Amino acid sequence: MTRYINVAIGQLGPVNRNHNRASVVARLMKLMREAHTLGADLIVYPELALTTFFPRWYIEDEQELDAWFESSMPNADTQPLFELAGELNIGFYLGYAELVVEAGVKQRYNTAILVDKTGEIVGKYHKVHLPGHREHEPWRAFQHLEKRYFTPGDDFPVYAAFGGVMGMALCNDRRWCETYRVMALNGVEMVLIGYNTPVHNAPAPEHDDLSLFHNQLSMQAGAYQNGTWVVGVAKAGNEEGVEHIGGSCIIAPSGEVVARCVTKGDEVAIAHCDLDFCQRYKRTTFDFDAHRQPRAYQPIVTLKGETLAADGTPRP
Amino acid sequence: MTRYINVAIGQLGPVNRNHNRASVVARLMKLMREAHTLGADLIVYPELALTTFFPRWYIEDEQELDAWFESSMPNADTQPLFELAGELNIGFYLGYAELVVEAGVKQRYNTAILVDKTGEIVGKYHKVHLPGHREHEPWRAFQHLEKRYFTPGDDFPVYAAFGGVMGMALCNDRRWCETYRVMALNGVEMVLIGYNTPVHNAPAPEHDDLSLFHNQLSMQAGAYQNGTWVVGVAKAGNEEGVEHIGGSCIIAPSGEVVARCVTKGDEVAIAHCDLDFCQRYKRTTFDFDAHRQPRAYQPIVTLKGETLAADGTPRP
Repeated sequence: MTRYINVAIGQLGPVNRNHNRASVVARLMKLMREAHTLGADLIVYPELALTTFFPRWYIEDEQELDAWFESSMPNADTQPLFELAGELNIGFYLGYAELVVEAGVKQRYNTAILVDKTGEIVGKYHKVHLPGHREHEPWRAFQHLEKRYFTPGDDFPVYAAFGGVMGMALCNDRRWCETYRVMALNGVEMVLIGYNTPVHNAPAPEHDDLSLFHNQLSMQAGAYQNGTWVVGVAKAGNEEGVEHIGGSCIIAPSGEVVARCVTKGDEVAIAHCDLDFCQRYKRTTFDFDAHRQPRAYQPIVTLKGETLAADGTPRP
Repeated sequence: MTRYINVAIGQLGPVNRNHNRASVVARLMKLMREAHTLGADLIVYPELALTTFFPRWYIEDEQELDAWFESSMPNADTQPLFELAGELNIGFYLGYAELVVEAGVKQRYNTAILVDKTGEIVGKYHKVHLPGHREHEPWRAFQHLEKRYFTPGDDFPVYAAFGGVMGMALCNDRRWCETYRVMALNGVEMVLIGYNTPVHNAPAPEHDDLSLFHNQLSMQAGAYQNGTWVVGVAKAGNEEGVEHIGGSCIIAPSGEVVARCVTKGDEVAIAHCDLDFCQRYKRTTFDFDAHRQPRAYQPIVTLKGETLAADGTPRP
């Protein structure tokens, strides 16, 4: 079994609220066919790829909210994508809003799945780091209500797939070093990350010009410091009046960007990734067994922040 | 009390093995005077600033090894530096090899101290992430025997000083995201990091051309992801036949480099740092209380690496 994987970025331009799932799936399939002609083994799509980024709106009506979610996967709309994957022998990562009923209670997750080359789901991830806010904040130019609409996941699983160890994350997760570290401790060799990132960040608008820099910096550091490939894929451009960064790229375990998108629309980029290249970092500078000092890291799990303990109670 | 701090980089060029402490202290004092004329409140010197980087040699004779260490601080050689600090009303960070006798046993640390504007030591740090190896490895062009000569520290203390919350790290620590995170959880606003980094890394020489990139990447990510200033200071240039990177720089909580050295010799650079600027990140994107998810981070402290548990035993 080869240890090379040809991974494609499947960047999307805007998905507006009146674009139905079928039209988006058609775009995803077009990108998949293009990636296939380039020899891709795997194509990575953005976060919430099937719909517009609906957390920008305050939605009070439950039925209206539910309409943005998928209650099964695959479903009638996405089935053609799964079938095409099997036909072309190409896997994919897909982000979407997931509605499940657990013990009689509706749970909503910001979800990513990993689908193998036969079209089977082989991994699932629930976004851990939900950004934004819980309550309606009308002073913002647009809302960012992920904390209202989603339940956070509580782990970063990795999956043996595509001849290596694959991990998933979503958007804001990429800014948190713990995301990559937890997966790396379990041997991750490639981290797949879909995102929707507005250029404008309402709480700190004076840094809007740094959005692309912070995007790349976080993923480069995550790759280098964990000896892993990182694939970041945007939903880019002006979606419902909100400008989103592009900056989709593939980063080597050296921290170097090896492939990049250059538009804000639907676009494919590809890299030929040697999973064994990870060992050049995992067995040297970042040989965790030799160099990590977990006894010095306790505050990372005993504290939530400057004022709260890990369980959310005030720090003494 | 102002919340601005003028921090100076006190980069050193090479210190050779025949340079005595007095000659090095004279260089440090010259840099301190220069920093003072620029209005500095604090000057940051490199790791192991008082001597050559002796872990590049395999030293069997205990007396010869001890000669590279300081058994008191200040001592006769460094006293003039402490006195000048008090005279000029300027603080400093200094890295040196420290020999202490604890319960009748010699302990050796790779140490940094923080000295306030009165010339008093107000903080001490023992390097946690010791790189390199324990045994003589003659195949290397030069040794990197920090694991042999030093005992690792086991925490990252922070100190209220200079009107803010100050933290310290040393060299290899800067590549490990846990270093910054642990200090940030305790409110750090400025992390001071001295280093000696050879361009050539014997276990992975094919990446020598990335040494400067990795240096800056790690410190930029640490700054941004924790909303803290980072000050990185090299001992640079060709020391005893080994080329060391320079790249000393001051990085804002935005991740942007705001000051930088451009030589491989003794050099001062300065930045006017607003400690309150940290809040623009600590209260928004990196509001830990709002956004961290410690329950997902357990492996960071329960695991040492891919094969070892935190206590060093094989993983089941």
